[in-house]
Amino acid sequence: MRLALGLSYDGRAYQGWQSQATGLTVQDKLETALTAFANRPVSTLCAGRTDAGVHGLMQVVHFDIDLVRDLSSWVRGTNRYLPSNIAVQWAKEVTLEFHSRASALARRYAYILLESPVRPSIDAGRVGWVFRPLEEQAMRQAADHLMGEHDFSSFRASACQALSPVKTIKRIHIARRGAYWRFDFEANAFLHHMIRNIMGCLIAVGQGAQSPDWMREVLLARNRKVAAPTFSPDGLYFLGPLYDQKWGLPEHTPAYDWLPL
Amino acid sequence: MRLALGLSYDGRAYQGWQSQATGLTVQDKLETALTAFANRPVSTLCAGRTDAGVHGLMQVVHFDIDLVRDLSSWVRGTNRYLPSNIAVQWAKEVTLEFHSRASALARRYAYILLESPVRPSIDAGRVGWVFRPLEEQAMRQAADHLMGEHDFSSFRASACQALSPVKTIKRIHIARRGAYWRFDFEANAFLHHMIRNIMGCLIAVGQGAQSPDWMREVLLARNRKVAAPTFSPDGLYFLGPLYDQKWGLPEHTPAYDWLPL
Repeated sequence: MRLALGLSYDGRAYQGWQSQATGLTVQDKLETALTAFANRPVSTLCAGRTDAGVHGLMQVVHFDIDLVRDLSSWVRGTNRYLPSNIAVQWAKEVTLEFHSRASALARRYAYILLESPVRPSIDAGRVGWVFRPLEEQAMRQAADHLMGEHDFSSFRASACQALSPVKTIKRIHIARRGAYWRFDFEANAFLHHMIRNIMGCLIAVGQGAQSPDWMREVLLARNRKVAAPTFSPDGLYFLGPLYDQKWGLPEHTPAYDWLPL
Repeated sequence: MRLALGLSYDGRAYQGWQSQATGLTVQDKLETALTAFANRPVSTLCAGRTDAGVHGLMQVVHFDIDLVRDLSSWVRGTNRYLPSNIAVQWAKEVTLEFHSRASALARRYAYILLESPVRPSIDAGRVGWVFRPLEEQAMRQAADHLMGEHDFSSFRASACQALSPVKTIKRIHIARRGAYWRFDFEANAFLHHMIRNIMGCLIAVGQGAQSPDWMREVLLARNRKVAAPTFSPDGLYFLGPLYDQKWGLPEHTPAYDWLPL
């Protein structure tokens, strides 16, 4: 049988999602816990690999296993073996056609940014930080240039393994509450470092270092060197993949309500 | 001259506010940083000591020092010597009549609670947790019994050093957003563990283990043994003291906007 799991994690303590020899990744912790609970080796595939320091509100994984347990036992049993900053939120049985990565129609991320003369404290490692004020309208205009299908090579890390730099951004939403900004991104898929590179550019525009139309120049250049530096992973949250409703999977977790805004 | 500082901190890593021989308290970290920046010994008095694991959104301290620096230098200079999960938010010069504890007219706390079948993960150490649903109206009725001036001995830790168990609760507000509850408390002052003991009782009522009127019985008993066990410090946030406006001190910090609701 094939199982899908949704999980939430605080990325601060981990070297990203993908398994490494150090064992200090979220995937390593999850597979160790699943293997302990199932009493046999379990390896998983995920919807979207997150970088070191990036948080997950609903990562989705799947794996095949010949072990029948209540779905709630998979959740509680696995969580017993996970560190306190990672938790499986739900488990669902899916058919063999479901694939956590290939079946995903879109991915959503949020970036939380603190705008304050004083660095983060209570929220250290959980938010990006700028001390100079941001201009909302300028950032909105710059973001509009990125909407739709484009070659996003200018926002692509050199280590990116995607087959094509062409992706489709379906939504960018910018909101603020007090000292906190929230940027929401939805695309069919994202390149490696794409959101952190876009954030670097949006902040350059928001602080007046560049004009909103500069974003279009950066996009058209298809050259990583013209964009702003990669912004901090601290405020980046993988909200999760979107699937066809036929799979019957949850679209969010309780952890969504933890974010400001 | 006398200086007042407002600071925010994540209480997870510390053995509470008050200085200890271990040096692992928020006060120890602050005084070490102030001493390093001022290049002379600095000791502080605070508005409200917080327990181990309790967070501060705006702790206020004062100290006397014969050193003239820009107020913004006090903030930035001290923060350079503080760990990443503690930050001074503001500095103000005050007259010698001001006293961070004695001048406080009231204190405010918030308790954030996750109601979910799954334990905290992204928010571990930052929220209390209940897995059984809570009934809002029952908790409101129970909270109403606590409003006003009472002898709160039933909610007082045995180690409490307060001169009197009589305190005045001015406000209890209960709200929820999705899986998160927020409880706001304002009183002239609080006894040791008072909010965590009240939270234990409110949860007992919210889950139907006790009736709303049981809260009144607990209050009138003036006996710690009749109340519920002390609830977790994880979700407790010291929002800060309230002072007479004549002192011209800020009433909140940017960190307030980080909390859900």
